[in-house]
Amino acid sequence: MSTPASQVVHLADPERARGRIGNCPNPESVLQYGPQLRMDVLDRLRTSSILSAAQFDKDLLCELSKLAAYLQLRKYPASKALEDKIMAAAFFEPSTRTRLSFESAMLSVGGNTISVADAKTTGVAKGESLRDIGQMFNSYADIVVVRHTEQSAVAEMTEYLRIPLINGGNGSDEHPTQALADWYALLKWRPEIAFGSIPEKFRINIGIIGTPGNMRTVKSFLTLALLFPENINHITIFSEMADPLGDEMRKLCDASPIGINFSRDLQGSLEYLDVIYMNAIAFLGDGYRFFDEEFQLNAQSKLKHDTVILHPLARGSELSVDLDTTVHNLYFNQADGAVWMRQALLLAIFDRVRNTIPDNLLI
Amino acid sequence: MSTPASQVVHLADPERARGRIGNCPNPESVLQYGPQLRMDVLDRLRTSSILSAAQFDKDLLCELSKLAAYLQLRKYPASKALEDKIMAAAFFEPSTRTRLSFESAMLSVGGNTISVADAKTTGVAKGESLRDIGQMFNSYADIVVVRHTEQSAVAEMTEYLRIPLINGGNGSDEHPTQALADWYALLKWRPEIAFGSIPEKFRINIGIIGTPGNMRTVKSFLTLALLFPENINHITIFSEMADPLGDEMRKLCDASPIGINFSRDLQGSLEYLDVIYMNAIAFLGDGYRFFDEEFQLNAQSKLKHDTVILHPLARGSELSVDLDTTVHNLYFNQADGAVWMRQALLLAIFDRVRNTIPDNLLI
Amino acid sequence: MSTPASQVVHLADPERARGRIGNCPNPESVLQYGPQLRMDVLDRLRTSSILSAAQFDKDLLCELSKLAAYLQLRKYPASKALEDKIMAAAFFEPSTRTRLSFESAMLSVGGNTISVADAKTTGVAKGESLRDIGQMFNSYADIVVVRHTEQSAVAEMTEYLRIPLINGGNGSDEHPTQALADWYALLKWRPEIAFGSIPEKFRINIGIIGTPGNMRTVKSFLTLALLFPENINHITIFSEMADPLGDEMRKLCDASPIGINFSRDLQGSLEYLDVIYMNAIAFLGDGYRFFDEEFQLNAQSKLKHDTVILHPLARGSELSVDLDTTVHNLYFNQADGAVWMRQALLLAIFDRVRNTIPDNLLI
Repeated sequence: MSTPASQVVHLADPERARGRIGNCPNPESVLQYGPQLRMDVLDRLRTSSILSAAQFDKDLLCELSKLAAYLQLRKYPASKALEDKIMAAAFFEPSTRTRLSFESAMLSVGGNTISVADAKTTGVAKGESLRDIGQMFNSYADIVVVRHTEQSAVAEMTEYLRIPLINGGNGSDEHPTQALADWYALLKWRPEIAFGSIPEKFRINIGIIGTPGNMRTVKSFLTLALLFPENINHITIFSEMADPLGDEMRKLCDASPIGINFSRDLQGSLEYLDVIYMNAIAFLGDGYRFFDEEFQLNAQSKLKHDTVILHPLARGSELSVDLDTTVHNLYFNQADGAVWMRQALLLAIFDRVRNTIPDNLLI
Repeated sequence: MSTPASQVVHLADPERARGRIGNCPNPESVLQYGPQLRMDVLDRLRTSSILSAAQFDKDLLCELSKLAAYLQLRKYPASKALEDKIMAAAFFEPSTRTRLSFESAMLSVGGNTISVADAKTTGVAKGESLRDIGQMFNSYADIVVVRHTEQSAVAEMTEYLRIPLINGGNGSDEHPTQALADWYALLKWRPEIAFGSIPEKFRINIGIIGTPGNMRTVKSFLTLALLFPENINHITIFSEMADPLGDEMRKLCDASPIGINFSRDLQGSLEYLDVIYMNAIAFLGDGYRFFDEEFQLNAQSKLKHDTVILHPLARGSELSVDLDTTVHNLYFNQADGAVWMRQALLLAIFDRVRNTIPDNLLI
Repeated sequence: MSTPASQVVHLADPERARGRIGNCPNPESVLQYGPQLRMDVLDRLRTSSILSAAQFDKDLLCELSKLAAYLQLRKYPASKALEDKIMAAAFFEPSTRTRLSFESAMLSVGGNTISVADAKTTGVAKGESLRDIGQMFNSYADIVVVRHTEQSAVAEMTEYLRIPLINGGNGSDEHPTQALADWYALLKWRPEIAFGSIPEKFRINIGIIGTPGNMRTVKSFLTLALLFPENINHITIFSEMADPLGDEMRKLCDASPIGINFSRDLQGSLEYLDVIYMNAIAFLGDGYRFFDEEFQLNAQSKLKHDTVILHPLARGSELSVDLDTTVHNLYFNQADGAVWMRQALLLAIFDRVRNTIPDNLLI
């Protein structure tokens, strides 16, 4: 039942901007509250490692989102900004999506890349320590992006490291740049969450399907969500686990004025949710597994007319493709924006924002 | 019985042009019938995907060959032409030869590359759909080259794709850029096939060893061969299969004035063949296997003195190395020309021919 | 017991030069005996393949070390020197460390890279000959770096090759660029070994743990050590093998005025050794295995106060991490210098030294 290539109709149209399926808010929206970038804020990222979403406060997330917007609008080409820099992509846990996103971001701002796509080709497989591998990257690169199956990998690798490291996902712990991409998509969709003040009755209700205590994307996303107590009303965690937050996240949540709820009834809660954060897999105490049907969404789900869905992708059956062409689909825009957010991050870490954005837009 | 490195004599000589073993026709030959490039023809490739050899007519093949010749002659450097572009090489079926050829082509015209060398490191291995992966490439690259074991992969991947896709081999279906490289080699060898008129008694006889119905390189090669009925006399298919053409190719062949023959007697037919197209594997109904001895060629085979052999490589025992240093060896030139043909294709797709070739050579 | 990313403290400081753990001699030291580069010597590398440490004489090693020092001091940026060149990294035996080192070197001098990180994705796995693969690289690259498990691989691959090849490690035979990096580190530490004259009682004693007869790094290191008979007193080979040298190396050693000793008592010999060359594995007749405890070193070992240790890394238990922060640790500097030495080599092979280093420093 396959289609021969000669019968495929394909219309590639570069005039259409990238990312045009589903909900595609204009990057201009995050600039409307003030077009100028606060360099005192962005300069805090100079030479920094990005290890945890907890490093970002509201100012930093806002300024990075604005910088990402300038890049995505292609107003100020940064195509040579990092031409003297090398990024090592060290993916000891394979992930094409995240690796290619970082590589694309680095190449787009003029940088170079060297890559480990598979731990089986490395000394790690032969028992070499991550400390020694970190020392190796000092010599080979100017920045290193690491993904690893173990939570402890980032700490081990930074021991001898003297170049910045970006955590590209460490076990069940964190995936901070994914969270930056998540929130960049949300701020393009509703910039008032970060930049404005939403009247009480319209404040945002967020649903998170998963367990922040042991799922890295969910944990990092929730950490950033807590930065906006003025404009977020409730966050509901949908999980079958008795304690989906875990100690670390529970402390953070307890300290926040945002109401945190727990529920197993996703379908019955849809009418209250403005944002739904999904994932392909659930952690259920004894390991990972795909979500049950009750945690799946499709075009027949009773979503509010303007609810948006985020998903770090790749997806499984929990997110039906019949949602792709609806306004609920913010997940493609989220993936698309990740490349621009990562470019913004790289420019800030290497202090090349000034070389890229005109002076009159910097304060 | 191995030779230590210290005893190896090696004379690298960059003054010698590349590709100099065997038959190495001068790229100038395809320009002698008219040095100007027809931009009305090449512009048909702007923003296009390359899915099937059936997309190419005689004009397009001729103009691409001339553009490839200009690049191979290194008269007009294109080394920055695509410096703002990223090519994703998505080789879900591993192929070093084709992947490196595309990467080399892209880098040679100044572009950047991101690569998947092995499907095992991708979400595909975890069940992610090619549709979603196509959507991902929209965000990461400006063009994507795909190789896949399944014929249907190209159609699935283009569903959400808004950047051009080049089919780098899809299952048993097509390998269009291989066919372009095949014919670029043949047109350098005998430009009159496309550009001139060959007297009847000297018209070309082609032998194809394999089954166009289910071997992608053979199918794509034959598709382009049918573009030259004026100067090709006969095409003989050598196969043990009852129906080596299959429905789709039989229709194309039936509609062509070129005589299509079938034979199992390769050795007895050699005296009539000007061009022989070989392959490393045969499809025999129940699967692939290496060719029997009767379909093998070596320096003792009764070839005409000026017969040329094409082979997409890698080779097995069907093509003896003792042919490498003979005039019959056009296969190395064919592999070498592939890089230049792919550069030509990339320049045409991205509309950068005008930036590369001087105006007085464009019409 | 893992540390969450949010609790990791990390201070990346690009102001600190790379390679700053352990013994970090200043690259200036190899320039103090004369800052000018002898182009008559470096020109011998133009268009050359690098197959064996035996290709290098004292002059060549000295001039390459000086060129590497200029690059490491970042006085004369070479960031565009090879922008028209492509390096193929063909690692049929996976090695992240060496592959990334070469890729980083090539990118740092402006070049492009295409890579095979794993033979399993190549035609080699399907039985394609290295001769054909060499022919392929003629078309795709301007230089090829090869690593292979078989000693004979380099000879086979050069058969049809017309571009320079760098041996990145061929079985048990050679690893010449590792030896160049080893000696670049030693010459920064004690430039007088190559450039000066050491009074007899202070001449250098070297200990090599391993079997030069069948360990490529050790063999290549020893080959270069024999270039300095004036300033090296003794070389002691520590091995459990009856004949650690083998025929080829024994001949070279017999012809040298340097005293070559054999011992199994490493710990008892430490007080005499100025330089110790270690390796992660030992060859013991019937195969490779990790070193016994008697061949291990740690901070409690009775080393002279100024002894330096070299190790090609990755390491096992033979080299304790408690040595890392001591003056004995030259191995991190050795790894770091490898990238600069490889840049120097690439510039010399492609005759781009003149475009990089000012005329007044060239003679």
